[in-house]
Amino acid sequence: MTDRVYNFSPGPAVLPVPVLEQAQRDLLSLPGIGISPLEISHRSKWFEGILAETKALLTELLGIPAGYSIVFLQGGSNLQFSMIPQNFLRGTGKTADYVVTGTWGQKAGQEAVKEGEVNIAWNGKSHNFSYLPAAGEVKSSPSGAYTHITSNETIQGVQFQEDPNFGDAPLITDVSSDFLSRPVDVSKYAMIYACAQKNAGISGVTVCILRDDMLERVPENLPTMLDFRQMVKNDSLYNTPPTFAIYIVNLICKWLKNDIGGLQKMADRNQSKASLLYDLLDGEFYQGHARPDCRSKMNVTFRLQDEALEKTFVQQAAALQLFELKGHRSVGGIRASIYNAMPVEGVQLLATFMKKFRQDNG
Amino acid sequence: MTDRVYNFSPGPAVLPVPVLEQAQRDLLSLPGIGISPLEISHRSKWFEGILAETKALLTELLGIPAGYSIVFLQGGSNLQFSMIPQNFLRGTGKTADYVVTGTWGQKAGQEAVKEGEVNIAWNGKSHNFSYLPAAGEVKSSPSGAYTHITSNETIQGVQFQEDPNFGDAPLITDVSSDFLSRPVDVSKYAMIYACAQKNAGISGVTVCILRDDMLERVPENLPTMLDFRQMVKNDSLYNTPPTFAIYIVNLICKWLKNDIGGLQKMADRNQSKASLLYDLLDGEFYQGHARPDCRSKMNVTFRLQDEALEKTFVQQAAALQLFELKGHRSVGGIRASIYNAMPVEGVQLLATFMKKFRQDNG
Repeated sequence: MTDRVYNFSPGPAVLPVPVLEQAQRDLLSLPGIGISPLEISHRSKWFEGILAETKALLTELLGIPAGYSIVFLQGGSNLQFSMIPQNFLRGTGKTADYVVTGTWGQKAGQEAVKEGEVNIAWNGKSHNFSYLPAAGEVKSSPSGAYTHITSNETIQGVQFQEDPNFGDAPLITDVSSDFLSRPVDVSKYAMIYACAQKNAGISGVTVCILRDDMLERVPENLPTMLDFRQMVKNDSLYNTPPTFAIYIVNLICKWLKNDIGGLQKMADRNQSKASLLYDLLDGEFYQGHARPDCRSKMNVTFRLQDEALEKTFVQQAAALQLFELKGHRSVGGIRASIYNAMPVEGVQLLATFMKKFRQDNG
Repeated sequence: MTDRVYNFSPGPAVLPVPVLEQAQRDLLSLPGIGISPLEISHRSKWFEGILAETKALLTELLGIPAGYSIVFLQGGSNLQFSMIPQNFLRGTGKTADYVVTGTWGQKAGQEAVKEGEVNIAWNGKSHNFSYLPAAGEVKSSPSGAYTHITSNETIQGVQFQEDPNFGDAPLITDVSSDFLSRPVDVSKYAMIYACAQKNAGISGVTVCILRDDMLERVPENLPTMLDFRQMVKNDSLYNTPPTFAIYIVNLICKWLKNDIGGLQKMADRNQSKASLLYDLLDGEFYQGHARPDCRSKMNVTFRLQDEALEKTFVQQAAALQLFELKGHRSVGGIRASIYNAMPVEGVQLLATFMKKFRQDNG
């Protein structure tokens, strides 16, 4: 255990140690079953139990109301960028509105253009996605097919502070990088989706929460694997799902419920962790990328005065076992991803280092 | 270890114990890195090394010649059933030939119909897919876009005994259930693909080996995640790949190379294991589903005289820790999946049980 470093990677990302320990314990053989969770059939009673329990835990944690379905898919958010317009835009004769708040929202819009009419209802590109739109600034289409948003932009570090309201069209949100990090009012959304490898597990599984009336819009003759109706109808078992990745989502949900005490408690912890870093960004030395009212609790992005100093920062941090702090090339600088599973001790150590580094180089 | 049962599941399926042990050992922290393989970034040097090494191992094991690319995708063979015609049939004005030798070949053809002109060049449905076509029986289209085959039908238990020759069109083969179980002459194929959860790893990753000239056929404006050109160009890193699943493929390849001694040795072992069971099918009591010259070395399918006896067989086998022997409902009876990682001891125990059961009930 003592050889573990603090991994600030934006994803795949740090997982809770109790989850890793549980997975490790049973990796050769599930007790009473005699088969590894890596080997067990998706048609086994054990896996059927895991699937049902994971849906129940997500429903409880997020307070998902009746009338929604949960499916576990493959292909990450990138494949959702195509599936969403294929299922909900194609053949409607309508326009889909995309609120482009960063790299991921932009990619979502670019894939949607291949499938139908798209309106970029707001675009933060001119200020390199450093802040988010207020409600009145989003220019929605009349009777749009849906409005797509990105709740947290992993690369730029901007995050909607609360569930936004952008008009009457069904609201679809990519929560890949802040899923399960705070309570959400699910009833405001027609669809919520997240790849798992930031807050909910390992890479290779995408969780989609769909309001059932949306399924009525799905056109005929989509590839079966891209047809949400088929995925819901077959309860994620049309094909062999990524069984082990779903098992890890299950363990994460149990950790959130039993060890953390639910999403409000998780949100409070995340707020405390984020404050440790943001409190250091309001001076001259560290320049936050995101406008203070749009700051992400998950990805803290900032710059130093020049690239040479940023390089030194990353190197000296690594010497303290603080890893993966280099910012994405499109923003530059430093990015500290402090997802649910990042221990407060790791953030404290980073904050202490930042103070020392400022003192030494300021 | 002693509590592990013999798991004859058709997939996800048994894995080699040394692979499980290695994964278990490092699950909390890779030595010298301090991060779990479940957590580590796909952009890390470690994962880049795993990716490059896995491709090199596959190239060595299969003798893949120059001019081919290997990519690791998501969505299983089912998504390939759509990707293949989207990439290689759409917009060509040609017809794709499908050789339908079982449930999986049938599904491949059904998805392809959504994308373009399809000719079912041979169909074994009338005899419930109990044998395979000879070369002259396949009615290919003139200048077809490609010919699609399934090297081993997991459900029916029929397997091409050697690389077939069905005309001049590029040959595409779904080797999901016999991948890495024997040598293959890769140069005969334009594309070879396999989901990993039978012989090559865990569910959630699909290995595609593509002849590079095929990429010239890919039409514009496919969803990026479904565009083979993008997957090859980005070396499987356009999106976050299923990192842990690829790591397991890596461990399997090392096991095949170092512990087994390569694919010919693996094929010899698989032949020996299969013979232990097939030797029992030529009498009255056990009726093999596949014609003897088409029998699969991976999935041994047979029936007993009635369903009640088959049920008793499955129950008594389970009492001996021989699990997952019930056949698929479309064939009925018994199916023993004896992939690479099934130990010979498991097959011997099953054969001994089968003899005893025949004696008791014959």
